[in-house]
Amino acid sequence: MTRFALTIEFDGTPFHGLQRQKHGPSVQQSVEDALHRITGEEITLHSAGRTDAGVHALAMRSHVDLEKDIDPFRLSEAINAYLRPDPIAILDCQIVPDDWHARFSCVERRYVYRICNRRAPLTFAKNQVWHVAQPLDHEAMHRAAQSLVGLHDFTTFRSVQCQSKDPVKTLDRLDVVREGDEIRIYAQARSFLHHHVRSMVGCLKLVGQGTWKEGQIADALEAKDRAQLGLNAPPHGLYFIEAIYPEEGS
Amino acid sequence: MTRFALTIEFDGTPFHGLQRQKHGPSVQQSVEDALHRITGEEITLHSAGRTDAGVHALAMRSHVDLEKDIDPFRLSEAINAYLRPDPIAILDCQIVPDDWHARFSCVERRYVYRICNRRAPLTFAKNQVWHVAQPLDHEAMHRAAQSLVGLHDFTTFRSVQCQSKDPVKTLDRLDVVREGDEIRIYAQARSFLHHHVRSMVGCLKLVGQGTWKEGQIADALEAKDRAQLGLNAPPHGLYFIEAIYPEEGS
Repeated sequence: MTRFALTIEFDGTPFHGLQRQKHGPSVQQSVEDALHRITGEEITLHSAGRTDAGVHALAMRSHVDLEKDIDPFRLSEAINAYLRPDPIAILDCQIVPDDWHARFSCVERRYVYRICNRRAPLTFAKNQVWHVAQPLDHEAMHRAAQSLVGLHDFTTFRSVQCQSKDPVKTLDRLDVVREGDEIRIYAQARSFLHHHVRSMVGCLKLVGQGTWKEGQIADALEAKDRAQLGLNAPPHGLYFIEAIYPEEGS
Repeated sequence: MTRFALTIEFDGTPFHGLQRQKHGPSVQQSVEDALHRITGEEITLHSAGRTDAGVHALAMRSHVDLEKDIDPFRLSEAINAYLRPDPIAILDCQIVPDDWHARFSCVERRYVYRICNRRAPLTFAKNQVWHVAQPLDHEAMHRAAQSLVGLHDFTTFRSVQCQSKDPVKTLDRLDVVREGDEIRIYAQARSFLHHHVRSMVGCLKLVGQGTWKEGQIADALEAKDRAQLGLNAPPHGLYFIEAIYPEEGS
């Protein structure tokens, strides 16, 4: 048995999520099916994060265990060939020790949320950014975001379907930056709750447009009540961008 | 009569080109139809450049003459509303003097050609970059490109269908830069021939992969013979990015 670590990019638009679903296509199913056609083996893909329908990844980290003896580069080429025309690409494939686990060894996860903040409608990237036509004050959003950084009970900012035992998480970073028409919100933590980033982004958008005062973010957090959530941002602006492992540094 | 200058962004994928075509959709037809529905007038859109099927624009400059008295911002909002769901957006709309002409007043035009240079297949942006899997030496491409800059007879680098009277043009800039997996080729001139940028990019790609020696670009130029063209790059990597007018500087 050999363990292969995969770095996977995907456009989440046509999928019901990264993880296998009973009803509808998933990234996991597509990759597992490709591996089955290459090896004949029944394979389970383990990944650093779970992503909802429509959420994207620029560098998801995953692993699989194969009986077949195959060179990692040839394996990635074969998976990519069998994945066509799905918008999934294996960017890297490496043999790793048997105790390396894409999910359990991961110590930090990073997401970016992209907002296109302009009056004109979108042409390119319609399913790849959240279009917000009214002007957003990204500096107010960044200031308000800092009240979410640190160890908190994030009950307000998680889905009622969230299966995590504990709503207490440590958010290591929540930065709001603007590049021209695009506002990017970078979030980093050891782990996130279900809809965690989208819930924070939705409320920050209300601050950006002036509907919420900056202090209302802290009030919503303090309430520990999902009913105090202002807005859950749509999935198609969200990207999983990095999984960090101790031995790799970063 | 009032003249309105428009800045237009479009994804060229579904169009047969910017200019109106007898057979098939065009950006010009979509914009003119939207204006007709707003004003009831028969309107002609004049633009700084012509673009082929599949070629994109981030900031095409155009103008129209309207009898209707309308605020420029309201006009751009109305055009954008009527353009849905076409991937065309009016980014800016201004009243200009009657002697300002989007095509004839334009003194410089800029394009960028985007190559995604990586082994893995594309996921996002499938019709928005040229995917080249073999590694390209962008520094060799940049050096070779410099032999095309200046006043030359570009017969080798223009389509046999090119309607320009004179194949002699002055290329002001041809820069090849890399950002990660993406190679960008920036071209600037007062005017270009048909397939001019794509023909230059195609040959530079041959240099980048080592099929052509750097000096072969100059040899192909010197030959003044379309048959000496190595390769015409596909349209979907090409973007019109700027039209420069004297009074605006840049």
